[in-house]
Amino acid sequence: MDTFSEKTEHLYLQIAGNIEQKIKTKVIGIGDKLPSLRRLCEMYNISQSTAMQAYYHLESKSLIEARPQSGYFVSRVIKRFPAIPATSQPVSGLENLEMNSLLDSVFSHIEQKDMVMFSHGVPAEEMLPVARLNKGLIQAMRDLQGSGTAYEITQGNVKLRRQIAKNAFRHGHLTEEDIVTTTGCINALSCSLMAITKPGDTIIVESPVYFGILQLAQSLGLRILELPTHPETGIQPDALKKALETEKVKACILISNFSNPLGSCMPDEHKKEVVRLIQQHHVALIEDDLYGDVYFGRSRPSTCKSFDESGLVLWCGSVSKTLAPGYRVGWVAPGIFKEQVNRIKLLHTISSTSITQEVIANFLETGRYENHMRKMRHTLYTNYLQYLRVIQEHFPEGTKVSRPQGGFVLWVEFDRKIDTIHLFKKAAAEKISFSPGRMFTLRRQFDHCLRLNYGLVWTEEVQRALIRLGEMAKEIGEF
Amino acid sequence: MDTFSEKTEHLYLQIAGNIEQKIKTKVIGIGDKLPSLRRLCEMYNISQSTAMQAYYHLESKSLIEARPQSGYFVSRVIKRFPAIPATSQPVSGLENLEMNSLLDSVFSHIEQKDMVMFSHGVPAEEMLPVARLNKGLIQAMRDLQGSGTAYEITQGNVKLRRQIAKNAFRHGHLTEEDIVTTTGCINALSCSLMAITKPGDTIIVESPVYFGILQLAQSLGLRILELPTHPETGIQPDALKKALETEKVKACILISNFSNPLGSCMPDEHKKEVVRLIQQHHVALIEDDLYGDVYFGRSRPSTCKSFDESGLVLWCGSVSKTLAPGYRVGWVAPGIFKEQVNRIKLLHTISSTSITQEVIANFLETGRYENHMRKMRHTLYTNYLQYLRVIQEHFPEGTKVSRPQGGFVLWVEFDRKIDTIHLFKKAAAEKISFSPGRMFTLRRQFDHCLRLNYGLVWTEEVQRALIRLGEMAKEIGEF
Repeated sequence: MDTFSEKTEHLYLQIAGNIEQKIKTKVIGIGDKLPSLRRLCEMYNISQSTAMQAYYHLESKSLIEARPQSGYFVSRVIKRFPAIPATSQPVSGLENLEMNSLLDSVFSHIEQKDMVMFSHGVPAEEMLPVARLNKGLIQAMRDLQGSGTAYEITQGNVKLRRQIAKNAFRHGHLTEEDIVTTTGCINALSCSLMAITKPGDTIIVESPVYFGILQLAQSLGLRILELPTHPETGIQPDALKKALETEKVKACILISNFSNPLGSCMPDEHKKEVVRLIQQHHVALIEDDLYGDVYFGRSRPSTCKSFDESGLVLWCGSVSKTLAPGYRVGWVAPGIFKEQVNRIKLLHTISSTSITQEVIANFLETGRYENHMRKMRHTLYTNYLQYLRVIQEHFPEGTKVSRPQGGFVLWVEFDRKIDTIHLFKKAAAEKISFSPGRMFTLRRQFDHCLRLNYGLVWTEEVQRALIRLGEMAKEIGEF
Repeated sequence: MDTFSEKTEHLYLQIAGNIEQKIKTKVIGIGDKLPSLRRLCEMYNISQSTAMQAYYHLESKSLIEARPQSGYFVSRVIKRFPAIPATSQPVSGLENLEMNSLLDSVFSHIEQKDMVMFSHGVPAEEMLPVARLNKGLIQAMRDLQGSGTAYEITQGNVKLRRQIAKNAFRHGHLTEEDIVTTTGCINALSCSLMAITKPGDTIIVESPVYFGILQLAQSLGLRILELPTHPETGIQPDALKKALETEKVKACILISNFSNPLGSCMPDEHKKEVVRLIQQHHVALIEDDLYGDVYFGRSRPSTCKSFDESGLVLWCGSVSKTLAPGYRVGWVAPGIFKEQVNRIKLLHTISSTSITQEVIANFLETGRYENHMRKMRHTLYTNYLQYLRVIQEHFPEGTKVSRPQGGFVLWVEFDRKIDTIHLFKKAAAEKISFSPGRMFTLRRQFDHCLRLNYGLVWTEEVQRALIRLGEMAKEIGEF
């Protein structure tokens, strides 16, 4: 069943590393032709898929390039791949521009079944372990008292909380008592914000930032400070330091790993520095870590939570991006705010759905989760490379692209003359949907940016749509 | 399967009506012995259970009385049953007393499996159609795209919304477009309050009022006005009129049918008058109707919503009290506030759990719901009569009791010298739990009251616990 085991995943990296070594030591020279895919399979006794993976990987590092009908060659140009966008510099002041109608347009595409949906940061159904979850549902029916008809305690299914704590062990030190389950990850953020803040308080977010966070914070009457954010390393610790020194801030919300929409992942030093800063200023940090398990590298990145001894970090997660969005199973480890968060959950929902919590608990317990995630990470990484290649070949000259090392989304930055709201309307007419950059800020910025979801099944149709999107952007740029 | 069909339920009422007629026209005189249960079965060709039901019903109306070892007799005393409490007169001014520790004590009993739980307003698992819901789960797995792993649209499962609208047809005029599903009924109230109010706003509630409403409103920073409420007819329209004329009110929350904790049911004239008043003052009415289907009379009571043409009524319901609390399936028909409510739901949870919505949709669609409810109503009504009898026989002289015509809870009012917090502690030591009156107000009142849940399976143990509770109350009263 497990065609992509941990071993296979490492194999392509080993082979790529081997070739990279040969290029760097000039055993293979610039412009040299590389072995064909078939030859590579024979040389290393590997599958076609592993061979392709190795070449894709080298291509993403701009070390090699594919030439139509000719095969792979060592790159002549060091940086042939799209550049990475610069650190964002959100203008100060709060514009709080109205964006509801834009969001409504983007969301209205969900119900249009013939749309190619680059707009949503969720995995395609084909990537989810539906059959195994269904077995789990039947098991949960048998195991749970009253087959899940009874109220779960407010804090949530204890077996699930134990598994979440156990899984977090590699990057934290939690027990089941530290966790409160929620109705998905956004509900973990919502309970956390409602427990910590009151209207008029100021919070700090990344820029660009997931629009759901902006909308939620706005609806709670919060003042939102967007800070400079790097597409690879996330929020700038210096900027955070300055903001905490000059503003009265109640909380920060950061997507620490593979952020939405940038795909940035905070290095450990940044995580430590951010935790030090919020401790120094006694400010809560809501750490949105819902993509952490979707890493492309060798191991899961750490969390801010794991560097926190003060209890000021509220670590939030869910299985909505990895197992089942529709189950609405998420959680938060609220640190010193546990009682308040649990109380907010009690007041607003009493408890979460019983049976879906039990299914996820079993799924995590039996190791099926890790098996599934290995496959899913492989699929997503391959997709990411495909997107990068199409963007490189078919998007306008000068297009910049983020380099997520995990997660579901790419951030694309065009030349300033390409307005992505205009592009959005053009694309919608051709049944292609994406999320315009304007959705990810309350300031006047990102009008020439967009977010792409690569959690789709990579098909001819998807490839055509992505190529077409690039062409339309070119048309706008040349107009 | 259906031992208690609609026909049977009507039969005992017919027979009771027949006997009542004979008593009123003095065909049977005061003090006369009535036929034995066995004789009654033969006379009407009915089952023992129907015969008992008929006598219980007459007993609850104080028309007949049971004498140990002797059988049933026409009552000598017209009002031998406990009196009904008077209309509440909450003192003005907002005390906002702290009650969290009390709530925590009551809630901590949930996890004590050996407690007799008179404290919670939920049906016993034995009353729920667990096996048929499980069949529904398997069906839903097959029917739903992705077996329920995918996000549901924010407004909720369309089939479920259609069934809710259809069921409401007898007491409203709704379509699927008017409904938004929620994570249980309390979440419907939460979304409604968040959509309509902002901190500092004033809302009107009944008195006593379900503590969940108090807690939720307090956490949202709302000012709470408790108004005089009658145990049989609910909030006093006159008091509401006066409050709306003198205070700046943003919304009312009323449990229109079989309120928690009183069990009151607003007569149609009161519903019409309340709707007229809120329309006149342009104030929203959040109508909590989660007990409406649990009626003991011949048909479901109406709703305020059905008398509202303005769209100011937000009608809330759920299946948590009738089918499956742990499914967390509720809804609201928010009238003119639909867009705001839907948006609040989107921001805080994105959507509700997909699969449990589908199960409930099918359950409602196939008529299994009505079948189940007939049985459940019968069981609850019988329980209610059993409670009333024990209270009459074993609770202190002068104890008053509400007369719910549906729902799960009884309101008991002792003499003022009996403090129910004291009783609560005594009872907890003997593994008996109930909800003290203090939980149902923010003012200094109801210290001598308590709420009892009769949604338990009536067993020897439950009967013993209820008798013991009465004895303990007597001990406190005599001390």
